[in-house]
Amino acid sequence: MTFTLVIANKAYSSWSFRPWILMRHFDVAFDEIVVPLAQATTHEDILRYSPSGRCPVLRDGDILVWDSLAIIEYLAERLSQTPIWPRPQAARAEARSLAAEMHSGFMALRGLLPMNMRRPVAKRELTAEAEADVSRLEQAFSQARKRFGESGAFLFGEFSAADAMFAPVVNRLHVYDVSVTPQTRAYMDAVMALPAWRAWAAEAAAEAWRIEKYEIS
Amino acid sequence: MTFTLVIANKAYSSWSFRPWILMRHFDVAFDEIVVPLAQATTHEDILRYSPSGRCPVLRDGDILVWDSLAIIEYLAERLSQTPIWPRPQAARAEARSLAAEMHSGFMALRGLLPMNMRRPVAKRELTAEAEADVSRLEQAFSQARKRFGESGAFLFGEFSAADAMFAPVVNRLHVYDVSVTPQTRAYMDAVMALPAWRAWAAEAAAEAWRIEKYEIS
Repeated sequence: MTFTLVIANKAYSSWSFRPWILMRHFDVAFDEIVVPLAQATTHEDILRYSPSGRCPVLRDGDILVWDSLAIIEYLAERLSQTPIWPRPQAARAEARSLAAEMHSGFMALRGLLPMNMRRPVAKRELTAEAEADVSRLEQAFSQARKRFGESGAFLFGEFSAADAMFAPVVNRLHVYDVSVTPQTRAYMDAVMALPAWRAWAAEAAAEAWRIEKYEIS
Repeated sequence: MTFTLVIANKAYSSWSFRPWILMRHFDVAFDEIVVPLAQATTHEDILRYSPSGRCPVLRDGDILVWDSLAIIEYLAERLSQTPIWPRPQAARAEARSLAAEMHSGFMALRGLLPMNMRRPVAKRELTAEAEADVSRLEQAFSQARKRFGESGAFLFGEFSAADAMFAPVVNRLHVYDVSVTPQTRAYMDAVMALPAWRAWAAEAAAEAWRIEKYEIS
């Protein structure tokens, strides 16, 4: 088994963070290639690895899977003994709904509060649209935890692909000091305490690349 | 088996079109509820059906699945005898990559050319960003067809979830008269000739609701 995961900067690449934290958490061995997004990186540099021109990309022998959610579905099939999605059907259905909602939505929040693993915690004012996104996030977290999460600290009890999909949002809520309920804060703390989170954060801190547009004071 | 699919206007709801054309094509029986997006429909009307406030939503007994891609994954598991995703592993990996890329991307194209099943065909000028989206779409279609589509007219030969995910884009390319290669045109024609496409289009034509912001002349 020789997976290769091609990712962008650990400091900023929310899409890359998702499969990376998932694979690391579940002890899936992989080689890593970092294609830093920065002034010196052209679209052609990324196209060498990714047909869509975007990271992340997973290589598994001759098979190429691009896009964070497709990688997660691919791994869930390929490593069927690993509980990547929650096992009960109803929990899995809700986990996939949340993952897909995250994949295509929360645009206001994502636009206003870019992921930045190195940012000192400091409050940023939210727009009404971003407030609505936060409110929906908290409601979604709360519903999943209540219905399926009793057995652990994560959305569906044990850590799953749903938590991987929301890991970048946890960073955003944290570094921009967004006001959240104690329940959401406890969930964020559980995610940020994962060894896989800490490893990613440490490697992000060690990166030399800095991109001004993602550095919002 | 008593599925219920909650959708928005057939004229405009690209997200709703995806699971609908998939289920209809594969003869999956379902009851349909239409929540029309229009001035008279409030966010609360939609929240009665959908926790995310968006359509589509699939109900299967006590299970609720929202978001078009999550519904497709749910059905692929639930109806495992139905070839919703291509069967060979490499084809399925690429189909999922394309589906997820569509789910989160092509923003310029989607913003400029809203789906409109009733629009008379007429050219709309593209922005550079929308041109780039069309170019990527054609490249993705071409690659899938070349590698996996030889046995039929669709992206992976027979109709699959990948085609369902791109059905709204086929409408956009058609009604805004976007310049495409003969290969892309042949693919579009195959999709538009599906009985399930024709059924959706006929029902869209019969709808009384009209929303000005989606009516771009």
